[in-house]
Amino acid sequence: MAAKHPGVAHTLAVEPYGLRVAARHGETILSAFRRSGIPVRSECGGRGLCGKCQVVLQEGAAVTPPTGQEERLLGGELLARGYRLACQAAILGDLRVYVPPESRSVLLQVASRGLARAVRLRPLASRVRVELQPPSLRDVLADWERLKWSVEARTGRPVRLDPELLPHLPVRLRALGWRVDAVLWRGELVVDAAEPREGEGYGLAVDIGTSKIVVHLVDLRTGETVAEAKAENPQVFVGEDIIARMTYALREREGLAELKRLVVDAVNNLAAAAISSGGVSASDVLAAVLVGNTVMHHIALGIDVRGLAASPFVPAVRGTVDVPASFVGLRYGRRALFPPVVAGYVGSDAVADLVATGMHEEHEPAMLLDIGTNTEVILNTGEELLACSAPSGPVFEGGHLRFGMKAAVGAVDRVEIDGGEIRYSVIGGTRPLGLCGSAYIDFAAEALRAGLLDSRGFFRRDSGDARLRRGEAGYEYVVVPADESASGHDITVSEKDLSELRLAKAAVYAASMVLLEEAGLGPEDLRRVYIAGSFGYGLSVENAIRIGLLPPVNPSAVLQVGNTAVEGARLILVSEDTLEEAERIAASTGYVELTAAESFPRYFRRGLRFP
Amino acid sequence: MAAKHPGVAHTLAVEPYGLRVAARHGETILSAFRRSGIPVRSECGGRGLCGKCQVVLQEGAAVTPPTGQEERLLGGELLARGYRLACQAAILGDLRVYVPPESRSVLLQVASRGLARAVRLRPLASRVRVELQPPSLRDVLADWERLKWSVEARTGRPVRLDPELLPHLPVRLRALGWRVDAVLWRGELVVDAAEPREGEGYGLAVDIGTSKIVVHLVDLRTGETVAEAKAENPQVFVGEDIIARMTYALREREGLAELKRLVVDAVNNLAAAAISSGGVSASDVLAAVLVGNTVMHHIALGIDVRGLAASPFVPAVRGTVDVPASFVGLRYGRRALFPPVVAGYVGSDAVADLVATGMHEEHEPAMLLDIGTNTEVILNTGEELLACSAPSGPVFEGGHLRFGMKAAVGAVDRVEIDGGEIRYSVIGGTRPLGLCGSAYIDFAAEALRAGLLDSRGFFRRDSGDARLRRGEAGYEYVVVPADESASGHDITVSEKDLSELRLAKAAVYAASMVLLEEAGLGPEDLRRVYIAGSFGYGLSVENAIRIGLLPPVNPSAVLQVGNTAVEGARLILVSEDTLEEAERIAASTGYVELTAAESFPRYFRRGLRFP
Ligand code: FES
Ligand code: FES
Repeated sequence: MAAKHPGVAHTLAVEPYGLRVAARHGETILSAFRRSGIPVRSECGGRGLCGKCQVVLQEGAAVTPPTGQEERLLGGELLARGYRLACQAAILGDLRVYVPPESRSVLLQVASRGLARAVRLRPLASRVRVELQPPSLRDVLADWERLKWSVEARTGRPVRLDPELLPHLPVRLRALGWRVDAVLWRGELVVDAAEPREGEGYGLAVDIGTSKIVVHLVDLRTGETVAEAKAENPQVFVGEDIIARMTYALREREGLAELKRLVVDAVNNLAAAAISSGGVSASDVLAAVLVGNTVMHHIALGIDVRGLAASPFVPAVRGTVDVPASFVGLRYGRRALFPPVVAGYVGSDAVADLVATGMHEEHEPAMLLDIGTNTEVILNTGEELLACSAPSGPVFEGGHLRFGMKAAVGAVDRVEIDGGEIRYSVIGGTRPLGLCGSAYIDFAAEALRAGLLDSRGFFRRDSGDARLRRGEAGYEYVVVPADESASGHDITVSEKDLSELRLAKAAVYAASMVLLEEAGLGPEDLRRVYIAGSFGYGLSVENAIRIGLLPPVNPSAVLQVGNTAVEGARLILVSEDTLEEAERIAASTGYVELTAAESFPRYFRRGLRFP
Repeated sequence: MAAKHPGVAHTLAVEPYGLRVAARHGETILSAFRRSGIPVRSECGGRGLCGKCQVVLQEGAAVTPPTGQEERLLGGELLARGYRLACQAAILGDLRVYVPPESRSVLLQVASRGLARAVRLRPLASRVRVELQPPSLRDVLADWERLKWSVEARTGRPVRLDPELLPHLPVRLRALGWRVDAVLWRGELVVDAAEPREGEGYGLAVDIGTSKIVVHLVDLRTGETVAEAKAENPQVFVGEDIIARMTYALREREGLAELKRLVVDAVNNLAAAAISSGGVSASDVLAAVLVGNTVMHHIALGIDVRGLAASPFVPAVRGTVDVPASFVGLRYGRRALFPPVVAGYVGSDAVADLVATGMHEEHEPAMLLDIGTNTEVILNTGEELLACSAPSGPVFEGGHLRFGMKAAVGAVDRVEIDGGEIRYSVIGGTRPLGLCGSAYIDFAAEALRAGLLDSRGFFRRDSGDARLRRGEAGYEYVVVPADESASGHDITVSEKDLSELRLAKAAVYAASMVLLEEAGLGPEDLRRVYIAGSFGYGLSVENAIRIGLLPPVNPSAVLQVGNTAVEGARLILVSEDTLEEAERIAASTGYVELTAAESFPRYFRRGLRFP
């Protein structure tokens, strides 16, 4: 990009909101935030005194150098890590800035619960109380064998020693007076000799999404979640989608290690928050089950992603990965289990969706969609499972759209057009900052219904609607007028925005249709359609069908099931049977590679139009 | 100790030789070394220029502060770790100094080979060549499952994935063009996907002794050692015997971690030396088998030693410990296997002695002794195995003796008294520095034979031998006169020295006799007596029986078998059958606790006399 004159606007990309705002050359980041209505703490009113307005910039970002106030309030270490004060750093070029949680008062909308079947409790981690005879000169059996034989007498099956327990075993047994709870992992690995407790035991169920991370603290006695915590995935700063993450992992020195550290730190922090809000002792947390798409799965395990980054998109491992918590870097629990994945672009989160909904067991055709930057579609034909994945891009999370943003406070999430009047609702009830994915879907559906839009995605120039106007980049429709918005500018939807929306929805539509065609089924054959994930939560199903994002299924067959990925992780954590089920699902699901499917281009072209 | 006047002698304990020499207040360490004939490099003649005369001191040692020369030649880091130049540091009090290998030109005598049976080759680590179909859009099987299925098709048995391989697997398979050697551990764990080689594969067999470490580099195709390396155990600086090591591990902050690091660093360095002298590529080293007494075993694994430090002396684990090499900190190979131990004071080195000699399979009574600061005795009664352990102390390694030293260059190792004449031999053929354990045994036996000594350990004052004299601490005998010795002083054996020898040999004698009595056998029933270890190598069997160190067995039944511990480790490395044998031995050997044996005091008292 050519150098710009003072006064000319730069673009400020604001994470984690996924918002793009204009900034003047030389103004502070805080000033640009304020003009766009982006909420950030600034207790001292921007005088560089309170230190609350911290933001994070990438190395070499085009801003003025740190001021004395910043050096005093942040210190060398934070400055070196890219932290700056928004009220001090002035903008000298296009910039990506990340607002860390401590600088925010608002949170992303993240579905942290979802539909979940009941399962028979048989937790992966369990306690066995044993009272050992202390050794004596006449009984010098070694500590481990003493423990092992007692546990085996109780459980009736052979157990093995976790080497990570060994260094501490003598201390534990003696400190606890030879009366301990052996902590068993999957019924056969002794991972701890813990203080006897009345059955207390907790586990972590973790959903590592590309943009969000959700952690449940689960009581292994009841199988229920007792506390939860969620946050955006801090890798967002490196890039919004998995392609950007893989590029970073493969191109940057220590890139993979850095991404792993980011996500593991975040999981540890969320776990700490859930443990504290659940009022649980950290030592009672025995293990974790972690699901995610295959790229998140690989990164969390530190696995090289080159197999996933290029065709034919092959994961390093499909089966369950069961490792010491220390292997991952988890601070809580002794083991970390990653359930199986289906393919390079159908991860363990999709497998978890299935075990949570139970869709895989149905005997009539059903489909599950998890819509995001990547959309996974799984079809139960009634006889077998077929899965595919479509690169739907960042549109549903507000990316590539002029006023698009994630579903955070300040986002318009629903839109209605009624007799020339437009109505909208805003998350958190504030003045609108922008529009999130569901608002664009609503808008398109309503505009089609109102005759403002044709099936090729053009506004009808003759509609006579006063909100329609010719903008810099073609025709656009004013959804929020300047006097209602947080920034004081109009918030619009343009034909270019609608074109991005059509590309994204065409990918989802084609993915669904290719699977149905493979099975010789039509949309009308589906008895159930599950929409999983945060995006699905805010979606109007009718409008999604109206614009052709979903194929023409029966709307009453559609269930918005929320975060079934974390619920599936929870069910695996509390039920060995469910883990076995997940393994059967992953091994038996047929993967359909869309780029190799003959019918894909046809459905994609059809999907580019509005029905 | 009270402050001493200038000129008054301090005592300098010199490791790893186990030598104690007198030093004048204010003289340099190099000067004291020279007067005592202790060899140390000093290329610049002691002018502080060559930097070769490095020694290591403990923190707070009573010496003058570092000179400018030392700061220049050693630098802050080495100085902080206790390194000093012997020619610069002047002695201000009693001192323990360690001469590191780089400052020495002579080596300890260490038995690095021993007797070993032939075994059927079935190495713990093996290679399986597979040529995988590269993935394609029509075949997106994950990397691990692709490898697994190919290996299983070749071996006909299920294999598991080593999680430590997983992060690198995608890179390996692609870099090697899908044609790899799967490295299998114990036939079922895939620990590497390596460059195809014509069967090359090496392993390390390691004997971690309290005072010495021996490493063999073993060719897994032939089962033979292709290179070896040995050194003293650097933990010696903390103390000579296992009691001192355990005290350090339990009392000092990070003491256990420090001892672990010392021994693992030493093993890594020895392995590097063997690999380089063997002309082998480090990546062809697949695994290691490590044996040692139970304390060394625990320390190398980082296991808390409190169970071993106090009665009833219980190990943390008896069975085989099979861990990733990284768990131990080994730089070579992917797995580290520690064979089973028998008890707190009968370690995996004793089990290795058995598998190497094959004594456990004999059908007639046989006994094995490994004599050192701790002496292990194992009896095969012809029907079962019994083991015990006696704290014989440092005497056999020269400790607690006025002129005692280890079997290093400069040590008198053999002594003969013949018609008033005394003859001796010196290791390395230099002027004598002191006497090693075997010389004391020879001396006592010869003096008894010559009628110079009575059975209570007193010199016969009336013997008329001119070498016998009254010294500061009672009667003593001049073995090496001043004009023959390296230090220019007489080297003597005193009644006090003989009393230390009687205590040590009584422990060994009693241990043997208690086991025989338990089995209802006498010494004459033994068809074979194996003397294992470095000490046994230099020993005169006749003299050992003459002084009652060994019970009155038939001398021709005695075999000095050398380092059977490292040979046993090697046999386990190259033969799964031998590992299974070791496990059977460890589980079935009856441990006899001497302190609980009724007959022990009786035999011990009898052993205090010379027969
Ligand atoms: S707003 Fe207070 S320091 Fe920036
Ligand atoms: S002898 Fe050369 S530096 Fe000490």
